[in-house]
Parts: sequence; structure tokens; C-alpha cells
Amino acid sequence: MSKVHNFSAGPSILPQEVIKKAAEAVLDFNGSSLSLLEVSHRGKDVVAFVDHNIALIKEILGVPEGYSVIYMQGGASLQFHMVPLNLLKTNGKAGYIDTGTWANNAIKEAKRIGGTQVLASSADKNYTYIPKNVAVPEDLDYLHITTNNTIFGTEYFHLPKSSAPIVADMSSDIFSRPINVAEYGMIYAGAQKNLGPAGVTLAIVRNDLLGKHGRDLSPMLDYKVYIDKESMFNTPPVFAMYVCMLTLEWLKANGGLTWIEQRNIRKAEMLYAEIDRNPLFVGTVATEDRSRMNATFLLKDETMEPAFNAILKEARISGLPGHRSVGGYRASMYNAMDVDSVQALVDAMREMERRA
Amino acid sequence: MSKVHNFSAGPSILPQEVIKKAAEAVLDFNGSSLSLLEVSHRGKDVVAFVDHNIALIKEILGVPEGYSVIYMQGGASLQFHMVPLNLLKTNGKAGYIDTGTWANNAIKEAKRIGGTQVLASSADKNYTYIPKNVAVPEDLDYLHITTNNTIFGTEYFHLPKSSAPIVADMSSDIFSRPINVAEYGMIYAGAQKNLGPAGVTLAIVRNDLLGKHGRDLSPMLDYKVYIDKESMFNTPPVFAMYVCMLTLEWLKANGGLTWIEQRNIRKAEMLYAEIDRNPLFVGTVATEDRSRMNATFLLKDETMEPAFNAILKEARISGLPGHRSVGGYRASMYNAMDVDSVQALVDAMREMERRA
Repeated sequence: MSKVHNFSAGPSILPQEVIKKAAEAVLDFNGSSLSLLEVSHRGKDVVAFVDHNIALIKEILGVPEGYSVIYMQGGASLQFHMVPLNLLKTNGKAGYIDTGTWANNAIKEAKRIGGTQVLASSADKNYTYIPKNVAVPEDLDYLHITTNNTIFGTEYFHLPKSSAPIVADMSSDIFSRPINVAEYGMIYAGAQKNLGPAGVTLAIVRNDLLGKHGRDLSPMLDYKVYIDKESMFNTPPVFAMYVCMLTLEWLKANGGLTWIEQRNIRKAEMLYAEIDRNPLFVGTVATEDRSRMNATFLLKDETMEPAFNAILKEARISGLPGHRSVGGYRASMYNAMDVDSVQALVDAMREMERRA
Repeated sequence: MSKVHNFSAGPSILPQEVIKKAAEAVLDFNGSSLSLLEVSHRGKDVVAFVDHNIALIKEILGVPEGYSVIYMQGGASLQFHMVPLNLLKTNGKAGYIDTGTWANNAIKEAKRIGGTQVLASSADKNYTYIPKNVAVPEDLDYLHITTNNTIFGTEYFHLPKSSAPIVADMSSDIFSRPINVAEYGMIYAGAQKNLGPAGVTLAIVRNDLLGKHGRDLSPMLDYKVYIDKESMFNTPPVFAMYVCMLTLEWLKANGGLTWIEQRNIRKAEMLYAEIDRNPLFVGTVATEDRSRMNATFLLKDETMEPAFNAILKEARISGLPGHRSVGGYRASMYNAMDVDSVQALVDAMREMERRA
């Protein structure tokens, strides 16, 4: 059977060798005759792979001294709550830039906790661009941004100028290109795009920002506890963390962030070139803010959708419908996607042009 | 190679057929040519198995009308925080019975949230028994108990008399025997003992207890949101939930709770009989409160431990050392453990007797 081209927005495509090794560990973890699903998280081999996992993250992203790397549960949505709990002082204020659904959810949660200002928004044009030249007050505890907007298909390529620490939700573009971690106060990401399966969340936190909030926090919501206990205050999601490690090994072995950025640029250029060339299709977002991870586009004539969907099905292209809140099409081209899958989509768009 | 007898306290033994089917789904989910790790949680087949999962729980436990079944992340430790947030009224009070480490952690979290009374404790005898005849005030919002105490090896076989709703942490004995769900206001359980891998938490909540707390809760900490969104407010831990479903199918196919209770009684009786008979060993807890899930015992002469550990190793018995906070030995005999593994442990204890 021919390959399925998996354009799912998340949970999303993982490298084939990662999937194969993950299945092997489910059957037999490290030659122990036990499944990875049934061994203690405090066992020597589990602690060893978690340490290796953290070391790989530090190496691949170039995490400087003074930052901690932790794994948690609850997805980015729980981080929307934990970020202000941990970083917004009881009499302080935080700034947020509103670039879509997820940024909005983060804003709602921050408002429950304390002083929260929305400094800019692209809601006026249905989130089709990233706000530029945002004036960031100097007295913020932090500035929050969403670096890639999965639903609307925009991505930050230049950080806002901010003297306050930048907290970035990188759920859908972490590990897709080199970044300078030192430019951030905190980075967090649900794993289920470029890193692993659903059920685990990564965070990188600048240590000196912690412990200043003035709240009595539950340990399960306190970054300091995760740091002190090396992500094992309680039983962590062992299997999901293992798959993340396998993905990081795959990324490193293939050339790391420089390699993946080149591949991601190539895939994005191929698809956007076809969107711009093909008279049947139109991109939905400002050209300079087009996401390399999630390309959103429309058929100019919506009545052609059934015909295009049939072509997609023939080509075994899955996961292309846009988010239920916006419609149209969304091609998610995360790290694990090969160039040939993007070519298959481009071919399908050309086939649609021929048939139209 | 001979079988490993996995007495790990958690994450812990799962049925072999569950492990095999879990590995198959990692390679190819439902014949989709895609891994279960890389498909959308909103896909038809994922939604279908989650629904089936919930239906199995309701059927196997006999969950009555008026209760909701939800899956969350964060383990029982996050429930220690969420239970009082959702069920302890801002001017109300909750009662807790202290039966060990986990009960204590639950108490600590409740005290952060509101009025919390410790009604009884077995701390006076290092948690070697379950407090009996506890006077439960009538005006409590709820009474919290820990039905099985993994670390100390005690288990409730009779519920306290309480006019307040009973909230039970059943992390380590849920699905081990029939229960009458109607006797509880809420039940919760981290999956990684009798249900699945680490990374997912089950809760069964009586609907009429909700929405009375008077707090502005983050959606990720609000049971009502999980109920309304059918455990998919955000991306749930898909793979861990799938493994839970496989375990529930295994349990149902083999005869459900009546069958598993008989098997668990048999295993516990075999081991406790040997602990009581063998002059080298001694049980650590009150006979009537001995857990069927976690049997804790000591070598009377601690200097024999290296010799016994060597015998355990020869017999491929793993996971037997007691919790790091108490020492000694702990045999966790969760649902998936066959009688032959308990026999292997009994044989090892007899071999120790012969060699001594």
C-alpha cells in the first residue's frame, strides 16, 4: 500500500524510525523483557533516558547556563495557567500579544491570576498577520507571545523588542529552526507537533525568574518543584517522554536545527509557490508572516472542495481540512514530514487545476 | 529466556496481550497506515475508542446514572489539588483520614485551599493499620480516604460511615474488586497500577456535587469542563487512554471484577500464608487491613537481605524492594499478575528458608 501523507495539525507526523523504536520499547524496554509501559519511573534505565533526553534538548537548542529544562503534563493549556501563577507577581502585570485562538486562551487564564494587558492583536484582520512594532511597557513581569499560530497559519520570524522577559508558547514550531534561548525568559511547548505524542509538555525556564510570585502554589503547579525533582515529583508520563527522546536523537543524527530549518524552508517554499501560482487557490495570511509549519489556504471557488477532497483522498493525503473554527485547508508540515509528501500535495493541487 | 516476574509498585505490570496490541497500534492504528502516536485526537477512530473506553468503565464498575467518567493528566497528585478546588466550598470544610504518604500529600493540598480536618490517622503506628470507627462530622463537604496505601500495604475493606460524600483515591486498587460506586461522591485513580501506563488519570464524579465551590477555576482544573468536553478540552493523552481501553477489554473478556477479585484474593492468600508460615519473614501491617495489591514484609534478620536478593535475582523476580521511605520488601500483585508469579515469589522465600 502506498504511503499516507500525514498533514495532521497535531497530534502529528513522527519519524518512521521513531515509531518503530517506540513500538519495540513497548514490547521490550532495553532488553529487560519488560515493556516500557510497566517499569518503574525510578528504575535506573528510565532515569538514564530522562537525563539523556534533557541533555539532548540542551545540546540541540543550545540552552545556556541558568536555564532549567523540565517535562510536565497537561499540555500548553495547563501552561496558560501555570505561567502567570509562577511568573506574574501578585501586584505585577504581564503583557500578551493576541495572535489567535491559543494566544487568546493564554490571555484568559492570565486575567484570572493577575494584571494582564493585551498589547496588540491581529483580531482586526482575523489573525492573518503578526502585529509589528508593538510598544512593550518596561515594567512588565513578562511579555507572552505564541510563536506559531497553528490554526491561522502565522509565525513570528522576528521577536518583539522587549526589556521584559519574553515567554513563548512554541508548541507548534519548537525544534523547527535554530533559536537563541537567551532571548527568552521561558519557552514551553506541548510535545505533539515536533517532539512526540500527546501527553507531555516541555518547558525551558530562566531560573532567576522563579520564586518571586508571592503565592502558595501546589507542587504540581510550581516550576521550582519540577526543577528540584528533575520532573519526577510524581510519576511522569514515561512513554511519551521516551518518544520525545527518540525524536531528539533522530533530529541530532540528521544534522540538528540547521538541517531541519533548511528542510522546513524548502517544504514551505514548495507549497507556498504552488498556492501563489495556481489560479484556483489563495493563501490566507500576510506573505511575510506565513508559517513554515502550518500553511493555510482556500479554494477560491468553495464549490470545488468536494472535487479537491476526492483528489486528496486518491493521493492518500490526510489531515488537510482547516481547523473547525476557520475552514478551508491547512497543510501542517512538521519536522518529520518528508519533502515528497509536500510534493504529493503540490501534485494534487496541479491535478485539481487540470480537472477544473 | 524465562519470564520476568514484575512486582513493581507502579508503573506496573500490564497484561501481555495489552502490551502486544499497544505495540501494534504504535505501528499501525486501526489499519490506517498511521501510528496511533501521530493521528488527531479529533479523528473519528480516536473519538470512537475514547467513547468505548468510557462505556467499558461504566459497564465494568456499574457506574449509576448521575455520575460522569473523565480522563485527565497530572496523576493523583494533581487530583490532590483539584478535589478541594472543585468540591470544598469556599466557606466549607473537608475531612481527611490519614493512612500514609499519599493521604498526607492530599491533606497538604486541601489545607492550601480551605477548611480541612484530619479526622483520624494511623501515623501513631507507622501507618500499619486502617483507622476504624472514625467519627465523621455531618457538615463536611466531603470525606477523603485513600482506599489502598501502596507504600505501607494497607487497604480499606469497609468504608467509614459517613453522611458526607466519600471521595476516594483508588489509584492502586481500582478495578481490583467489585465496588458500589453509589457509595462514593467521587473516585479517582492514576492509571499506572491496574489500568494503563503512566500519564493519564481516571475520575468518576457525582454530577450534583459540582459547581458549588464558588471559585473562578481554570478550565484545566475544572471537572465540569472535562465533563462538558468529554475529556477533550485540550489534546488528551491519546496513547495512554488507548492502553487503558485495551486493559479494560482484557478485564471484561476474562470475567470482570468478580473474576479478578477471586484471582487477587488467591494471590494475596498464597503470599500472606507464606509470610506467616516462613520463620524468616514477618508481615508489617495489621492482618485485617492487609492489602491485596501491595504486600509489605520484612526479613526478621536484615543481614539476610543480600542472600534473599540474590535468590530473587536468580528467579527473575523484579520490583520487590520496599518504597525508599520504608525499606523491607513490597510485593505488588496488581490485576495483570498471574498466580505463577506469586508462586515464584513463594518458592524464593522457601528457598531462602532452605539456605538459611
